[in-house]
Amino acid sequence: MKLITYSFQWLTSLFLIVAFQAHSQNTQANLYPSSEVVTIHSRLLNEERKVYVHCPKVDSADANKRFPVIYVMDGDNHFALLAQYVDYLSRPDVLAMPKTIVIGIPNTKRTRDLTPTNSLLNYEGKADSSTYTDSGGNEKFLQFIETELIPMIDKNYKTAPYKIFAGHSFGGLSALNCLLNHSDLFDAYIAISPSLWWDKEYLLRMTEEKLKSGSALDKTFFYSDGNEGGSNSFFHKNLLKLDAIIAKKKLKEFDYLYKHYPTETHMTEPIVAYFDALRFIFKDWEKRR
Amino acid sequence: MKLITYSFQWLTSLFLIVAFQAHSQNTQANLYPSSEVVTIHSRLLNEERKVYVHCPKVDSADANKRFPVIYVMDGDNHFALLAQYVDYLSRPDVLAMPKTIVIGIPNTKRTRDLTPTNSLLNYEGKADSSTYTDSGGNEKFLQFIETELIPMIDKNYKTAPYKIFAGHSFGGLSALNCLLNHSDLFDAYIAISPSLWWDKEYLLRMTEEKLKSGSALDKTFFYSDGNEGGSNSFFHKNLLKLDAIIAKKKLKEFDYLYKHYPTETHMTEPIVAYFDALRFIFKDWEKRR
Repeated sequence: MKLITYSFQWLTSLFLIVAFQAHSQNTQANLYPSSEVVTIHSRLLNEERKVYVHCPKVDSADANKRFPVIYVMDGDNHFALLAQYVDYLSRPDVLAMPKTIVIGIPNTKRTRDLTPTNSLLNYEGKADSSTYTDSGGNEKFLQFIETELIPMIDKNYKTAPYKIFAGHSFGGLSALNCLLNHSDLFDAYIAISPSLWWDKEYLLRMTEEKLKSGSALDKTFFYSDGNEGGSNSFFHKNLLKLDAIIAKKKLKEFDYLYKHYPTETHMTEPIVAYFDALRFIFKDWEKRR
Repeated sequence: MKLITYSFQWLTSLFLIVAFQAHSQNTQANLYPSSEVVTIHSRLLNEERKVYVHCPKVDSADANKRFPVIYVMDGDNHFALLAQYVDYLSRPDVLAMPKTIVIGIPNTKRTRDLTPTNSLLNYEGKADSSTYTDSGGNEKFLQFIETELIPMIDKNYKTAPYKIFAGHSFGGLSALNCLLNHSDLFDAYIAISPSLWWDKEYLLRMTEEKLKSGSALDKTFFYSDGNEGGSNSFFHKNLLKLDAIIAKKKLKEFDYLYKHYPTETHMTEPIVAYFDALRFIFKDWEKRR
């Protein structure tokens, strides 16, 4: 009997040891939004461009549905975050926004693509020929988006017409430049800490020039800045100038929000600002439900 | 010559057609934080428990480093978001917090595990025997975390002693309960919209009882609520009560922050509150750098 008891205890101990061993499995795909990397050849930019594509999970109720699309610059930095936000915010038990496709555009030549003019001046107004030589290609980059990227996405995915263009820093500059010069391209624009210092505040001058007082502009615009040198910094002053110009123009049908994040840095701000931007853009969608 | 030109044009066109075809590839692993699912047998809870584990990417400078750990309840809802936040906030060009391990604890029996007492009363004070019959197992769940989960994680991963316990709603209740009854278990606690209404505000009474006026409690505590029924709701009033009790106790070494998000719902609030909680908990780490 003793032997049997002993064996039983031994077997039990062995079982417990085996059972307690943690075993792991790879289910990366189930933990994060599903996404893919798509490569297209851009004739305009004469290069291969990767884009990241996140499509929402669909069920039978979505069979005939088409989805709004967010195009986000600096895809390597912010695509995954936005994919996660839209998946969470569109869940049946959250429903703060519709299911949405996210397109992340990673950079090849960031300064070339995201700056509106050729300028060698850095944020202090000093020439920096090592960094900014190829600047000024934003117009061509926006043409790439209009004539190559958007048609490819619209052809291959279940897109609705509603489109958002989102960027941070130089990406914010690019979003504002698109709003001013190709406003038809997107329905909503997000410019998080746009580098308005670029080329002696070129885009502030363009904003003053291009937005016609009292005219109609049926777009949504979210713009913001963090604590980039304090409340007296050129960065913050430029955002206040942008906000003042927009307010002065009294545009019709223009829905805009400026948010300042004094406790966030240039790099931490996008996490909260992208969330606030989505909440702002879809506030009416949420209320209508 | 004409033939050659024609062939060349034809070949060029073919090349362009082929080149323009978007081709996709699966690089899910590169777009999102790397994570794994680990299963352990809990003798205490008498069941298999899955946990999600995210470890930071390490480089040669991290060879001998060990990392703080965040344990987050409702793992299916919030693990992926926290993994993304810590990966981004610890990047070399962001450095708002250290590289951190995230452990997500998905639910098996949520009400059983995350409520501190056995009660059938819902938030309106009415008996709801269909939903809450098995409530009151939080003490056992915390024992599981202390004696089974944490030792397994500490054994298998490069953990530093610093640990955070985070939860939302019933998960927030559980975080507060742990702070009151097992404060040694973690260094920092996050309670996002804790369901303080539970069992006639049981945990508010416990907070009053357990926190000794003027005593030392070297912990960090972030708690918050959203717009859950407006500024006069029982939900908001309960959070104000919690905040008032804590202020009144004048605890030494206790670092706490209460944030109210009037524009967020019970379900949208965690996205911004988890971000703010991390920023609060690691504010001194960021400054020390």
